[in-house]
Amino acid sequence: MLSLSRGIGAARTFPLQRASRALSLFCSATMASDAAAAKKRVLIVGGVAGGASCAARLRRLDEKAEITIFEKGPYVSFANCGLPYYVGEVIKEQSSLLVANAAKFDKWFNVAVKENTEVVSIDRKAKTVVARDVTTGTDTVHPYDYLVLSPGGNAVRPPLPGIDLPGIFSIKTVPEANAIKSWIAEKGVKRAVVIGGGFIGMEMVENLVHRGIECDLVEAMNQVMPPFDPELVEPVHERLRSKGVTLHLGDAVAGFEPGTSGADGSSKEEGAGLLRVLTKSGKKLEADLVLLVIGVRPETTLARQAGLTLGARGGIQVDEQMRTSDPDIFAVGDAVEVKEVVTGEQTLIPLAGPANRQGRIVADVITGNEPSRFRGSQGSSVLGLFGLTLAGTGASEKTLKRLGLSYDKVYLHANNHAGYYPGARQMDLKLLFDPKDGRVLGMQAVGEEGVEKRVDVVAMAIQKGATVFDLEEAELCYAPQFGSAKDPVNLAGMVAANSLRGTHPLVHWDRVDLGALLAEPGAVLVDVREPGELVKVGSVAGAVNMPLSGLRQQLQQLSQQEGADAKKYYIYCQVGLRGYLATRQFLQAGLDAVNISGGFKSFQQVAPKL
Amino acid sequence: MLSLSRGIGAARTFPLQRASRALSLFCSATMASDAAAAKKRVLIVGGVAGGASCAARLRRLDEKAEITIFEKGPYVSFANCGLPYYVGEVIKEQSSLLVANAAKFDKWFNVAVKENTEVVSIDRKAKTVVARDVTTGTDTVHPYDYLVLSPGGNAVRPPLPGIDLPGIFSIKTVPEANAIKSWIAEKGVKRAVVIGGGFIGMEMVENLVHRGIECDLVEAMNQVMPPFDPELVEPVHERLRSKGVTLHLGDAVAGFEPGTSGADGSSKEEGAGLLRVLTKSGKKLEADLVLLVIGVRPETTLARQAGLTLGARGGIQVDEQMRTSDPDIFAVGDAVEVKEVVTGEQTLIPLAGPANRQGRIVADVITGNEPSRFRGSQGSSVLGLFGLTLAGTGASEKTLKRLGLSYDKVYLHANNHAGYYPGARQMDLKLLFDPKDGRVLGMQAVGEEGVEKRVDVVAMAIQKGATVFDLEEAELCYAPQFGSAKDPVNLAGMVAANSLRGTHPLVHWDRVDLGALLAEPGAVLVDVREPGELVKVGSVAGAVNMPLSGLRQQLQQLSQQEGADAKKYYIYCQVGLRGYLATRQFLQAGLDAVNISGGFKSFQQVAPKL
Repeated sequence: MLSLSRGIGAARTFPLQRASRALSLFCSATMASDAAAAKKRVLIVGGVAGGASCAARLRRLDEKAEITIFEKGPYVSFANCGLPYYVGEVIKEQSSLLVANAAKFDKWFNVAVKENTEVVSIDRKAKTVVARDVTTGTDTVHPYDYLVLSPGGNAVRPPLPGIDLPGIFSIKTVPEANAIKSWIAEKGVKRAVVIGGGFIGMEMVENLVHRGIECDLVEAMNQVMPPFDPELVEPVHERLRSKGVTLHLGDAVAGFEPGTSGADGSSKEEGAGLLRVLTKSGKKLEADLVLLVIGVRPETTLARQAGLTLGARGGIQVDEQMRTSDPDIFAVGDAVEVKEVVTGEQTLIPLAGPANRQGRIVADVITGNEPSRFRGSQGSSVLGLFGLTLAGTGASEKTLKRLGLSYDKVYLHANNHAGYYPGARQMDLKLLFDPKDGRVLGMQAVGEEGVEKRVDVVAMAIQKGATVFDLEEAELCYAPQFGSAKDPVNLAGMVAANSLRGTHPLVHWDRVDLGALLAEPGAVLVDVREPGELVKVGSVAGAVNMPLSGLRQQLQQLSQQEGADAKKYYIYCQVGLRGYLATRQFLQAGLDAVNISGGFKSFQQVAPKL
Repeated sequence: MLSLSRGIGAARTFPLQRASRALSLFCSATMASDAAAAKKRVLIVGGVAGGASCAARLRRLDEKAEITIFEKGPYVSFANCGLPYYVGEVIKEQSSLLVANAAKFDKWFNVAVKENTEVVSIDRKAKTVVARDVTTGTDTVHPYDYLVLSPGGNAVRPPLPGIDLPGIFSIKTVPEANAIKSWIAEKGVKRAVVIGGGFIGMEMVENLVHRGIECDLVEAMNQVMPPFDPELVEPVHERLRSKGVTLHLGDAVAGFEPGTSGADGSSKEEGAGLLRVLTKSGKKLEADLVLLVIGVRPETTLARQAGLTLGARGGIQVDEQMRTSDPDIFAVGDAVEVKEVVTGEQTLIPLAGPANRQGRIVADVITGNEPSRFRGSQGSSVLGLFGLTLAGTGASEKTLKRLGLSYDKVYLHANNHAGYYPGARQMDLKLLFDPKDGRVLGMQAVGEEGVEKRVDVVAMAIQKGATVFDLEEAELCYAPQFGSAKDPVNLAGMVAANSLRGTHPLVHWDRVDLGALLAEPGAVLVDVREPGELVKVGSVAGAVNMPLSGLRQQLQQLSQQEGADAKKYYIYCQVGLRGYLATRQFLQAGLDAVNISGGFKSFQQVAPKL
């Protein structure tokens, strides 16, 4: 059932550490080297996600292998994605974060876990590593047949003035989370500045606010959640502001100083903090706590020292079997570069799911169980923030633009479930696809309920090379509290498919120069909503109102006006559906018309950028 | 942009009803017949789901077509899936159920809606229908170029003794729902008997209980929710009982009588009802209200009368373009037979999603917009019941068995999101796949949260012909409140893939004859959970306890015992994971072992049937 991996030479020069059982079975010298061949020594550097998955699967596939995990921190296999919620006291107990511990690895998997042990060097020629006990400083040498690097990433910590002041934290480990919790308790933290608006920054903001701490957020880009396109993030900005978070977008941290209240908190006047964050734009933000979460850099110290090839993005280069430039050394997780499946680009995608799957693949390859290959990553990810969900999979528009790839898109605003069932919530969706063949390139969505479900369905669609025509025909579960007979995924496919078929010409707010359009005598911006709606929710200045309910009559007259057929009509409604119906009427009346995707709702989300 | 459908002959013998506009443009006799060619007359029988979708898309694609919907009831396009919730007062207003009305069809779509109008006959030769105003009895004749049948299904109402007693209701229409609501209010209904345990029966039970009405449920099969495999429905039975619903499974209704309390409710003694339901097993169930929801039969009266071909299952036969045996007549929705995509079987799948898509396809075909084809149905469906969700897609095991198709399966019990984040709920999943190539055949799942999300992902996987190896590598969104780094979909794929690869030999409780196994000297049933768990949750009588935590030591001894390698070890744990780990240890110790899929949890769900 198990075919042993090829290429494990006969006798090794290093003594077998735990060969006693094997030697009791195999007694001659030749047998001992057979035993060496049968007993692979696998060392794993880093015991979270990829490393831990690899160890567990290795053991399942090969009961005899000698497997050791070196973890430089005090805990293997801890739930790093849970750390913000632990700080927020949503997760109450530290023990909840410890998915497995050394004792479980020993009992369940016969895997030796060396905690507080950092691998400091690799001798590829001798096939050994030096591991340092970080508590005692003692070094030991360990031989390997296979080495698996799962070192993760490091929090970026720029050498800014004041960076080492107490009260400035990163959050990558359980001890760091505990340090933040202690600081909050001891210093009676009232205000925090979170620097960095990515996943962890957002989750920290939510959890600090949850604990009653006021937050300022500093983000160098003009939006939070940089992997997402800006218009999808606009509802996130709104939600943050509605929770009292002050956003400092397009601004970066320049340095830190002790705050007005002094390090001992002696002055407690209004707005005084233990620390002061200085931004490039000249702001001075006082706070009792600073979270520095501006990103993660692949941990490649060991790999560089060992002369392994790195990629252009600074991660360890691996092949489809997660093999580094040294065939006996594998690497997985946040430290490696992977292929983004939609664009084919080599990139860094620090996510737990891919890391786990990579660990499994390495185990398959080392044991020869299966010629498994990592297919690449789609970057499927989700953020929960104050009841809002933001999720995405595949390529974003900004990535497609940057790479100069051909794409088209549609926006829609659809209910999470049947509107006639109470509690329906509208979500905003953006679908990116290839205009040549309709292949789905990416989906992003934001809303309150059922958001990540639609993104997961599209993630599977992308994995299987599905087109918008497939989404149109997708058969998803429907009952009124769960979805609609035409699910948002279907609707996205239908809008895109109609656009590709040419029956539904679409344009996008960000591709329309509104000023030029309104100044142009040959162009007309038409709002087809009913007059009452315009009053209630607003409209685009300069638009002509031609309500859908009376449009046929109006078009009969309009189509007979001289010059009407020389004009181009840019149509919008509230979310896009009526704009589509109106566009069809214009076109069939012999007039040149195009629907603006996503209607006024999309206008409101794009407007901040126009 | 619009290519007109071919095959519409020149002059028709029927006067054009609404040709005034066309005639004002085209004045000669030849032009008039061109106008007839350009102006398709499309009649649609039935204005809910498929019919309404067809009308709306027809109009979008062809502004000139004459489109008429005949609806025998008082409302077009009403939300029939919402009716149980309207009775339950979850949906408060009748107006919420009316997704669109005749006025909206007129204003938005220029579609004529004839409500309270039943089409009573088709003259295929003359291409006319006779429509009857059900309020006046007046018949009118209407010509068509294309006829679209969307008549839906009829509630099955067997001619049982007493079937016409007042208080026995079906629920297919708004008036029926209103009649039930009035009856509940007027009679002060305290007890109800719901006959039929399908989707509508279950939803009615939930909604009646929600209104404080005690329910008995009578179902002829040994399980509710017949499209699902019995073990997946066991949690539904439990949930029903926990809400005080009395289940009468494997029993059928034999007739009805007036109840003890008399039709006027004169006697109000304990247990007295307005009606008495007699069952085949001899039970007499008293209740003030009876819901008869034992199924739906395709409404084919018109189709039969017109000589259209019906299929073996009693539905209207259509081709992939939803064309009946008459090329000018199309049929969609609950009345037609469709191809089940996984098995290829022709079957009846009365679901709103497929009906809507079929209606769109007919519009494409009639207008020549697109050579659209209906791909078949997967039967993706979901039930919400007292906080429990039951969902499925693709083939069930019972269907695969009935058709003699080759399949294998895995069970798992996985958390909806990371266990370390508060509120994780376990769901039960069953994945069916082709043992030859791993192609996914079906998925069923039951649990409290995130159930239909996983089924939707697998629905997309099935649509694209994905294998269990694809599920293994699926990249779904993960954050601790939404999922796990290894999502239940991944886990299902991993278990199935390991089974196919031969590294994880699996067997199933329903394929193990426990009595024979335990009597067999060569077979051993091994429970690898820790002793404390056995005490707490129970175990299978006759199983030997070999806890995973000490298994390696036990196996060292066991593997040296004489005859151990001649035995077969049937292993189980709580949900399957530790059973897998143990099975790997047994196998690698040279012993013949197999893991029982889904562990003790699955045993509990299958046990009622063993």
